[in-house]
Amino acid sequence: MKIRTDLAIEGKEILEEENKGKKIEIKGVEVDEDQYDEGVKVTRIKITDENGSRAIGKPIGTYITIEVDDLVDGHEERKQVAARALSNELSKLIKFHYNLKVLVIGLGNEKVTPDSLGPVTVSKVKVTRHIFIVTGAKGDDHVGCVSALSPGVMGTTGMETAELIKSAVSIVKPEVVIAIDALAARNVDRISTTIQLTDTGISPGSGTGNMRKDLTERTLGTKVVAIGVPTVIDSTTLILDNLEGYLKDPRGAYEHISKKGESMIVTTSDIDQVILNFSEVIANGINSTLHPGIYST
Amino acid sequence: MKIRTDLAIEGKEILEEENKGKKIEIKGVEVDEDQYDEGVKVTRIKITDENGSRAIGKPIGTYITIEVDDLVDGHEERKQVAARALSNELSKLIKFHYNLKVLVIGLGNEKVTPDSLGPVTVSKVKVTRHIFIVTGAKGDDHVGCVSALSPGVMGTTGMETAELIKSAVSIVKPEVVIAIDALAARNVDRISTTIQLTDTGISPGSGTGNMRKDLTERTLGTKVVAIGVPTVIDSTTLILDNLEGYLKDPRGAYEHISKKGESMIVTTSDIDQVILNFSEVIANGINSTLHPGIYST
Amino acid sequence: MKIRTDLAIEGKEILEEENKGKKIEIKGVEVDEDQYDEGVKVTRIKITDENGSRAIGKPIGTYITIEVDDLVDGHEERKQVAARALSNELSKLIKFHYNLKVLVIGLGNEKVTPDSLGPVTVSKVKVTRHIFIVTGAKGDDHVGCVSALSPGVMGTTGMETAELIKSAVSIVKPEVVIAIDALAARNVDRISTTIQLTDTGISPGSGTGNMRKDLTERTLGTKVVAIGVPTVIDSTTLILDNLEGYLKDPRGAYEHISKKGESMIVTTSDIDQVILNFSEVIANGINSTLHPGIYST
Amino acid sequence: MKIRTDLAIEGKEILEEENKGKKIEIKGVEVDEDQYDEGVKVTRIKITDENGSRAIGKPIGTYITIEVDDLVDGHEERKQVAARALSNELSKLIKFHYNLKVLVIGLGNEKVTPDSLGPVTVSKVKVTRHIFIVTGAKGDDHVGCVSALSPGVMGTTGMETAELIKSAVSIVKPEVVIAIDALAARNVDRISTTIQLTDTGISPGSGTGNMRKDLTERTLGTKVVAIGVPTVIDSTTLILDNLEGYLKDPRGAYEHISKKGESMIVTTSDIDQVILNFSEVIANGINSTLHPGIYST
Repeated sequence: MKIRTDLAIEGKEILEEENKGKKIEIKGVEVDEDQYDEGVKVTRIKITDENGSRAIGKPIGTYITIEVDDLVDGHEERKQVAARALSNELSKLIKFHYNLKVLVIGLGNEKVTPDSLGPVTVSKVKVTRHIFIVTGAKGDDHVGCVSALSPGVMGTTGMETAELIKSAVSIVKPEVVIAIDALAARNVDRISTTIQLTDTGISPGSGTGNMRKDLTERTLGTKVVAIGVPTVIDSTTLILDNLEGYLKDPRGAYEHISKKGESMIVTTSDIDQVILNFSEVIANGINSTLHPGIYST
Repeated sequence: MKIRTDLAIEGKEILEEENKGKKIEIKGVEVDEDQYDEGVKVTRIKITDENGSRAIGKPIGTYITIEVDDLVDGHEERKQVAARALSNELSKLIKFHYNLKVLVIGLGNEKVTPDSLGPVTVSKVKVTRHIFIVTGAKGDDHVGCVSALSPGVMGTTGMETAELIKSAVSIVKPEVVIAIDALAARNVDRISTTIQLTDTGISPGSGTGNMRKDLTERTLGTKVVAIGVPTVIDSTTLILDNLEGYLKDPRGAYEHISKKGESMIVTTSDIDQVILNFSEVIANGINSTLHPGIYST
Repeated sequence: MKIRTDLAIEGKEILEEENKGKKIEIKGVEVDEDQYDEGVKVTRIKITDENGSRAIGKPIGTYITIEVDDLVDGHEERKQVAARALSNELSKLIKFHYNLKVLVIGLGNEKVTPDSLGPVTVSKVKVTRHIFIVTGAKGDDHVGCVSALSPGVMGTTGMETAELIKSAVSIVKPEVVIAIDALAARNVDRISTTIQLTDTGISPGSGTGNMRKDLTERTLGTKVVAIGVPTVIDSTTLILDNLEGYLKDPRGAYEHISKKGESMIVTTSDIDQVILNFSEVIANGINSTLHPGIYST
Repeated sequence: MKIRTDLAIEGKEILEEENKGKKIEIKGVEVDEDQYDEGVKVTRIKITDENGSRAIGKPIGTYITIEVDDLVDGHEERKQVAARALSNELSKLIKFHYNLKVLVIGLGNEKVTPDSLGPVTVSKVKVTRHIFIVTGAKGDDHVGCVSALSPGVMGTTGMETAELIKSAVSIVKPEVVIAIDALAARNVDRISTTIQLTDTGISPGSGTGNMRKDLTERTLGTKVVAIGVPTVIDSTTLILDNLEGYLKDPRGAYEHISKKGESMIVTTSDIDQVILNFSEVIANGINSTLHPGIYST
């Protein structure tokens, strides 16, 4: 029975549950953890071979999960710590140098709140490429050459999102693409507590609407770092997760529900606050990574 | 087992299902139907006594359901027919006269798409009260004296929504309040096809977030007509509805799931289009009812 | 002394003013007028040679001005008449056939109200290209193959807007591009009363922000029809226009003020209503032109 | 000749200009200055009697101007310094104590970018009153009891804004009202560099649209602190300011232009960035003043 999640850390949790809660060693999967500060924890999962990939249900690569307690309602410093953690981890995936060319992509539909994380974050990222073009690269400050695009969704453009992104890549020729997207999680509590970074890009079928996105180094010809926050849970997942323990034959239940509810999204009623706060944390983390001369966290 | 729905017509459907699909006569409930035009159907349910109220699960009063096929994706004329139907039905509940004083309330959180129907509709309603104040009532045109308020939600104002509305009522002293709200339905297909009008106002526990709203003639001292469109389905409802037939003991399942998912909302991925189109239909219907001299549908 | 305006009809008016209000024949300029209905008037200016181009201050081509009285505050029918007029005139520039490939571009910054006409209108245009791709062209209805893009502005993307549009053109290979943009007028009264259509595309230096846009058949390799509404007046224009008659030496005044206020925009305080209503009229006009099978005006 | 400005510091500057640039002592006006940090300067103007009031053109009271260099485009720390300066100055006007009751009002029209400072800032202020109501005041943390309202504008509600605010005051019975509003300045450079705090509330005729606002201790029965940022300059002011020096008789010019352009607003083309950044600075400054236990700057 397949539980849908975009989070590698949930893939690991599912394995552990199947193993009755015991931690297990999996060939091809390396895990280490870090506590940044009170309330901010980082887990790094490295999938190194096909066996690990099958076990976790994700492509080979590095998955960094930042878990933040009470980001939406809690102390303001928590947001600063989270942005600093994100910037530190991001800096390991993207090495800054002056005039570093980065294209930041905000995936999703700005008009649907739980799908708006990408475009809202992008609107807070400091774009500088046009200044480099107008003034020339002067080298007197520690800034990157950043461009950004929120390509919309197929239903509102009539175009494949990936095609528009490829065009933007061919215009700005970035050294790295950062793709920001709303994710689907299995566990409701992940909404408003979790940020995932990965160097594997974005795979088809991920995100809020099961889009046919495939944004990877293979398809774009450039390294792709994806940053996501779970904002929805799959309705199928919700149903099965709630009935866990009650059902004798979950697989049978799965067959029964798999057809309905495919275009449904399940989110929390304070999703506007989640988007407001996480977009700020991610934008601040990106800004201080790409423009260390003018931002700090 | 209680299935949550804000629609009287679904209360009736549930009764019929329990009666194995056969139409039934219920004491205290009168039903009649009308076909407005291809694709637009009206069902009027009149609950006349306590027995009918218990059977349908709604207060005594009139519930008018307008069902529209393909409003979002179909022919543009469909929207005009739907607005005309709404205006016709609304005119039976609200008798227009020159300088008719109406306060239109847009309930819900504009920043959360499935909860934004009220505020978005209100932004398209033609407000005229300030013109009456400035120029005096001249009586040379067929217009009502309309004011409007989107009071926000308790989480963003810190105040009871009902208290703010009572204040507005005491400022404008309307002959009737029209309250627009996003509703919860049981059946997914209701999202994007259904408008409900009722002269009973809005009861506590309805809408997207189970708010403590109670906007009725009793609490406001003025007649309250509520107009709503289902934009969410209850996650509990989703779960049970999907497992209907599979479960031997749905009541037992209900116990199992009732605690989780309380703050979750379940909606469709094209909810932005639903809000865009239905807000236009409702605003047009209201405008031509309250300002017949300048609008027609 | 150059007065800045994006409207050909104002170019003509300026000539007439210089000629003390008398109508004049200009070589290379043909003018005809039509009254569509009470309150909706159409003026067609055809610039046929270089002389006409110099006189009016616009490239050779056709400029259609639709003037609408009281569109924002007046009778609702006025909007329908305006949409019908727009559709009629647009149909002369774009011949509909089944599966007609059109790319609609919404220029400007959605976050700055007077610059948001393009993106807001595009969000109301019916996009169908992805349906053609998924289902194949079936030919059973009168619909065009429409895609749409709001490319943002250079300050928020770091990319030349024209480059992004060229990419979209190479993806969808349209037979015609429709570009929607907010315009600058000389006369304040033009804001909220005027729509301009032209088959000449968009020239550099037009619009709200003096952008370096150049969207023409020459640069895009496809016919470009531009639709615009004045939403700003140039601050220089405002100053000089207001002091007309008072100043002895307007040219001297022009020198004096030309440096300041370059990045300023001047608009009306009800610009939100202007955008709301004109975006609806333009989107309806476009939809009924490109999808005659499902829309009518 | 009256130059329109909502800033006391500009009233002082105008006096100095008339005095050929020399600093002057004015009876009834006390001025002192502070440098907070590189790029952030505070000027406190205290108007102590009617003479000072006439000279500066503002009611008796304290006006604190925070001037910030490069807030929109510069170093991120600048924003933090500005928020800290605002919080420090605000703390002198509002003494924090646990459970301090404050009502924050966001004046203006959210749908018109240069008029949206109030509502956008309010959406970022931490509202807590409903939590106090639900959980009771526990006293275990350093938080205020904050409610908030964005009452809209008369054109969209049909009601006097001041009446709605009075209602909210009677609901929450605050010890102090904070009113946030977009202001008009004389000098273009003030847009994006200046924040004004005052304990005099808001006088009629101020702000972007010359509204009939009168929010003072006299009208609300509660202390009113106003926080504003200039986002528009008056078109009359723009005209005269630009022609200063050129005109022999500015008073005559003023007569000439005073009728036109009354409903016009003049703003900068990057006003979206101004609103985005200043709303964050003001919300952070308010949050750390009213909830010192959970925010710091």
